[in-house]
Amino acid sequence: MRDLFCTWARNAGCTVTIDQVGNIFARRPGTDDSLPAIATGSHLDSQMCGGKYDGVLGVMSGLEVVRTLNDRGLETKRPIEVVVWTNEEGARYTPPMQGSLAFIGDLTLDEVLASQDADGLTFGDELRRIGYDGDRPLGESKFDQYYELHIEQGPALEAMGIDIGIVVDSFKSHGLKIEVTGRTAHVGPTPMDERQNALVGAAHLVVAVDGIGWQHHPQGGKATTSQISCFPNLPGIISERANLTVDFRHPDPAIADQMLGEVKAAMAAAADKANVEMKIVDSWSFGENPFAEKCVQHLSDTADAMDVSYMEIRSQAGHDAYAIGKIAPMGMIFTPCTGGISHNVEESIELEKTLPGVNLLLNAMVTAANR
Amino acid sequence: MRDLFCTWARNAGCTVTIDQVGNIFARRPGTDDSLPAIATGSHLDSQMCGGKYDGVLGVMSGLEVVRTLNDRGLETKRPIEVVVWTNEEGARYTPPMQGSLAFIGDLTLDEVLASQDADGLTFGDELRRIGYDGDRPLGESKFDQYYELHIEQGPALEAMGIDIGIVVDSFKSHGLKIEVTGRTAHVGPTPMDERQNALVGAAHLVVAVDGIGWQHHPQGGKATTSQISCFPNLPGIISERANLTVDFRHPDPAIADQMLGEVKAAMAAAADKANVEMKIVDSWSFGENPFAEKCVQHLSDTADAMDVSYMEIRSQAGHDAYAIGKIAPMGMIFTPCTGGISHNVEESIELEKTLPGVNLLLNAMVTAANR
Repeated sequence: MRDLFCTWARNAGCTVTIDQVGNIFARRPGTDDSLPAIATGSHLDSQMCGGKYDGVLGVMSGLEVVRTLNDRGLETKRPIEVVVWTNEEGARYTPPMQGSLAFIGDLTLDEVLASQDADGLTFGDELRRIGYDGDRPLGESKFDQYYELHIEQGPALEAMGIDIGIVVDSFKSHGLKIEVTGRTAHVGPTPMDERQNALVGAAHLVVAVDGIGWQHHPQGGKATTSQISCFPNLPGIISERANLTVDFRHPDPAIADQMLGEVKAAMAAAADKANVEMKIVDSWSFGENPFAEKCVQHLSDTADAMDVSYMEIRSQAGHDAYAIGKIAPMGMIFTPCTGGISHNVEESIELEKTLPGVNLLLNAMVTAANR
Repeated sequence: MRDLFCTWARNAGCTVTIDQVGNIFARRPGTDDSLPAIATGSHLDSQMCGGKYDGVLGVMSGLEVVRTLNDRGLETKRPIEVVVWTNEEGARYTPPMQGSLAFIGDLTLDEVLASQDADGLTFGDELRRIGYDGDRPLGESKFDQYYELHIEQGPALEAMGIDIGIVVDSFKSHGLKIEVTGRTAHVGPTPMDERQNALVGAAHLVVAVDGIGWQHHPQGGKATTSQISCFPNLPGIISERANLTVDFRHPDPAIADQMLGEVKAAMAAAADKANVEMKIVDSWSFGENPFAEKCVQHLSDTADAMDVSYMEIRSQAGHDAYAIGKIAPMGMIFTPCTGGISHNVEESIELEKTLPGVNLLLNAMVTAANR
């Protein structure tokens, strides 16, 4: 997918550069090329069992902007950049949004290159193996504004029959990697009161985290555990270690932060119930107020001028745009996805329903690039 | 370990044969070699993170019986057999005690050979790979009596300063493999009330199973989950599948069977709480009254004649002897293990504390073989 994107971008006349964490920058020059670019982008990686459009549609929409300008023989004053961010999903390496976070300096190059997958393979070695260990320093591209188009990953647009969502707010999200430590023993003779079963401690926490999610459900809060591993993970021997990842989000950043306290209290209670140790070994958070009012306004004004309908919408997932929003004015466009289904192989879109969104991206970028 | 045992057994004058599931039979002929053998045996496999004595001590004690008879130039009327049973632990292939269960006909040859490990490798292919796919038909050896020496895997002998336990009863044990089915979805936008998180269902069950164990703890009952796997097992995507193994045991077989009903009720409640499906995909049980009164009596009489102290003890773990007890009179001897620690790398014994048990095995086998 990376190779194909680079080929297509070069065929569309772009200069393609790769930075040290594998982020790909396809640049269409402006008539005043010294000005910072109007940029768009998204990611090509997916989840295991994920769909074909989450991320990919945003990258392809950026390429379509460039191709449309070429087809019409149009130049822009400011350059246009289309960016493919590395590892948005965090499926193999954590944290998610690793490429964009490294780009803005929230992660160091060394941290990213040293991160390991479940088999102990490092990000740096694997990036070298696929030939995307570029030499461009992190953060070198300067963006005047950044826009990202993405499928909604929720049912609202489809349900209301509206083809464009202009994203006005996000959910504050926290991610925690937690390690539980128990002690191996034989499941037969070891009495219940002498056990330190790491899996039992982890299970108490999974149940409690789910309960925290339900408690905040009326206001749109969510809490999830969807990843666990145990060691030695055999039927006849009590677990000495369990590792799990906990995710929780809330539209109100203050309540998302309060949920962190609730999860920590749940950890202490779960550890106590199972007579095990429990600690946070890694953590991240994202999604606090990343949208620039001027970009939201520009998208709305452009949509009004195009005479297309849109609704203001809140993003519940994480996006690379959140990171970029910390260093440049940022706005996002959502397009409908069938049944709101995402991170599932059934994820689907209808091409014609994405056209209003892609046209909005084109018009918003061109007017921004020509001012 | 298998090769070493075969070499040592041949060097001790035994005929070594291998059956179709890799059980190894080392036979020392009797003066009336047409009579069924007095047999002993145990296993050489261990748990990941397990110790060096669980199983191995019983095999080595059998070999020591043969070597001692050789050293003294003694013959026995009935033949002596020392057996190494394949896969007692069930660490890589389930059920546990696969070799002895196949030997007595409780598992078919095809069932055993077709069983798969976590990587999908079959028992049959792996047995062939290590060269232990023997040609001897299952169940061909006939045993007049069977004795097994094993470390106690509990603290009682050490605590009471007694070196021999004569096992008089067991725990009835049940094992269940359970599959939980949910549905993948994005952890960000999917509301709590639209989720079918297989891991959450599994966690509710792990907590409930632990509760069942505690409920029966005052009478010595235990219930354990120490193995789980999830798919796709990633932080950003709700689990569509979880697999776990549940083990529960009770000294009273009727209550162990009642616990099966309690676990099934817990499965239904957990499935309901997490909006997932849950089903039993495999099950096994063992340990109901496997000991022959005449073997227990013979061990006690022999110990009395040797003037060594012993205590009657109940076995809490599973043993190959339980299976053999269904086709031949069977008795077991326990020797102390330090701190009662087993299925842990710290498992340890003191050699001199095993001598009374090994001498009892020798004397009991010889008198049984010469009658």
